[in-house]
Amino acid sequence: MRVVRTIAELKTELSRKKNEGHEIGFVPTMGYLHEAHLRLVDRACQENGTVVMSIFVNPLQFGPNEDFDRYPRDIERDKKLAEERGVDILFCPETKEMYPSPLSVTVQVKEGTDVLCGRHRPGHFDGVATVVLKLLHMVEPSRIYFGMKDAQQVAVIEKMVSDLNIPVTVVPCETIRENDGLAKSSRNVYLSEQERRQAPALYESLVQGAALINEGEDRPEKVIEKVKDMIEAKTDGEIDYVELLSYPDLKPVESIEGRVIIAAALRFEKARLIDNITLEASRKAAAAY
Amino acid sequence: MRVVRTIAELKTELSRKKNEGHEIGFVPTMGYLHEAHLRLVDRACQENGTVVMSIFVNPLQFGPNEDFDRYPRDIERDKKLAEERGVDILFCPETKEMYPSPLSVTVQVKEGTDVLCGRHRPGHFDGVATVVLKLLHMVEPSRIYFGMKDAQQVAVIEKMVSDLNIPVTVVPCETIRENDGLAKSSRNVYLSEQERRQAPALYESLVQGAALINEGEDRPEKVIEKVKDMIEAKTDGEIDYVELLSYPDLKPVESIEGRVIIAAALRFEKARLIDNITLEASRKAAAAY
Repeated sequence: MRVVRTIAELKTELSRKKNEGHEIGFVPTMGYLHEAHLRLVDRACQENGTVVMSIFVNPLQFGPNEDFDRYPRDIERDKKLAEERGVDILFCPETKEMYPSPLSVTVQVKEGTDVLCGRHRPGHFDGVATVVLKLLHMVEPSRIYFGMKDAQQVAVIEKMVSDLNIPVTVVPCETIRENDGLAKSSRNVYLSEQERRQAPALYESLVQGAALINEGEDRPEKVIEKVKDMIEAKTDGEIDYVELLSYPDLKPVESIEGRVIIAAALRFEKARLIDNITLEASRKAAAAY
Repeated sequence: MRVVRTIAELKTELSRKKNEGHEIGFVPTMGYLHEAHLRLVDRACQENGTVVMSIFVNPLQFGPNEDFDRYPRDIERDKKLAEERGVDILFCPETKEMYPSPLSVTVQVKEGTDVLCGRHRPGHFDGVATVVLKLLHMVEPSRIYFGMKDAQQVAVIEKMVSDLNIPVTVVPCETIRENDGLAKSSRNVYLSEQERRQAPALYESLVQGAALINEGEDRPEKVIEKVKDMIEAKTDGEIDYVELLSYPDLKPVESIEGRVIIAAALRFEKARLIDNITLEASRKAAAAY
């Protein structure tokens, strides 16, 4: 595995691989790797001759009161894990390499951002979209891999790729979970022991909400109520949101039909957890109710 | 020359050329071609194996009260001129091919837009940057060619390419003029006979302003005054602006030094003309004054 820190080095390594006729698979991350990241690498290795991973904690997507400074970092461990799993080129730029001066041209995401995590994180998805576009221009991959835990991020990136005609295929990959159902996340390390025991209830509640839909419930407010009640009963965390929206449009729905997402965010003392389920609600299920 | 109307056809033609190892030169236009466009084609032909031209009057960059509907169009004549001059692929998409639905992700230009043509055209450069980025993603050229008559556009595109790490070289080309100095423009057809006789005074005045700087004048207001006075004396048009800024930053300067632009816009009855001169103001000239 080659570890590169500058865009120039990255391009040199990439042109070598491209000259050999390799397709490039790209896994952008903020590091502190865990199994969910590495499953993206597995998938990228299956589908491409060369796999590039970036590790960059992107200041542009953090708000002033968010956890940029204390976002967990362990680059030496990350290098080892990435290499073992099959990453060919690891790109770890310094902030000044990515942002040598304040940007005067950025990406603006106008829809799908006033819901879920975007509601309380103004500018967050502009920051995500901008850094992903910059990275796509540097790497020029055939495919880019994202985990569905950040479903809103996937929806925004898919919209950007389509609206701006970016020549890349977005590959959404299923959420990877601990044995007890908790979605893997770099921020899980911040959970206290007690919070960690309660945390699986987030996913369990979403599963219950999905079950209700599968039984024929088509009223969003009923599903949301059930999920909220269960989270409140089983955890001491503070609910940030529980929402039910169309997917990937992320629009509120009056009646549950077609592809929808049930998503929730739960705030513990030092960590904010998010999770979601997307599912296809059929007319048939509703009719059978 | 291949004429294509869809992105899919464009990609088919391009992949053929790229497989032959051709570098791609790209000339984006709004059509109604004249010598200035064709000189961009000449340059592109010299530097690339394949030359792509796009003709697309981009609604996104026109304001509600601007001349989108009556922007001059003559596609049959354009095809003939492009082919004669050496364009290999002419891309003429319909609006719905470029914008199948309203964009929810766009490019936002935050600096260099509150001056010159941007001041009275809110959103204009966001529209320009967005369509150019879309076209760049479709064509993936090595080089993209722009005329310096639209110097602010060149500055914005160069900033976008740099801020977003777009893998393309921007090639600014000199302004092409009629024998009497008037910058060639598709909008010149809208000048009355009398306006056409007066129009060269726009460039003459900028030349006088530049001469003043070369003689050592370093006070922007003095240069602007001279240019304004001369335009007012020699034309019946209404001055939209005369500005002197650093280039390519497009920032106001207290004292003229380094690379600067003197730019002006002049409104006649049915046409608004723009022109500019960029020049290097040396300390030496100032000292010699």
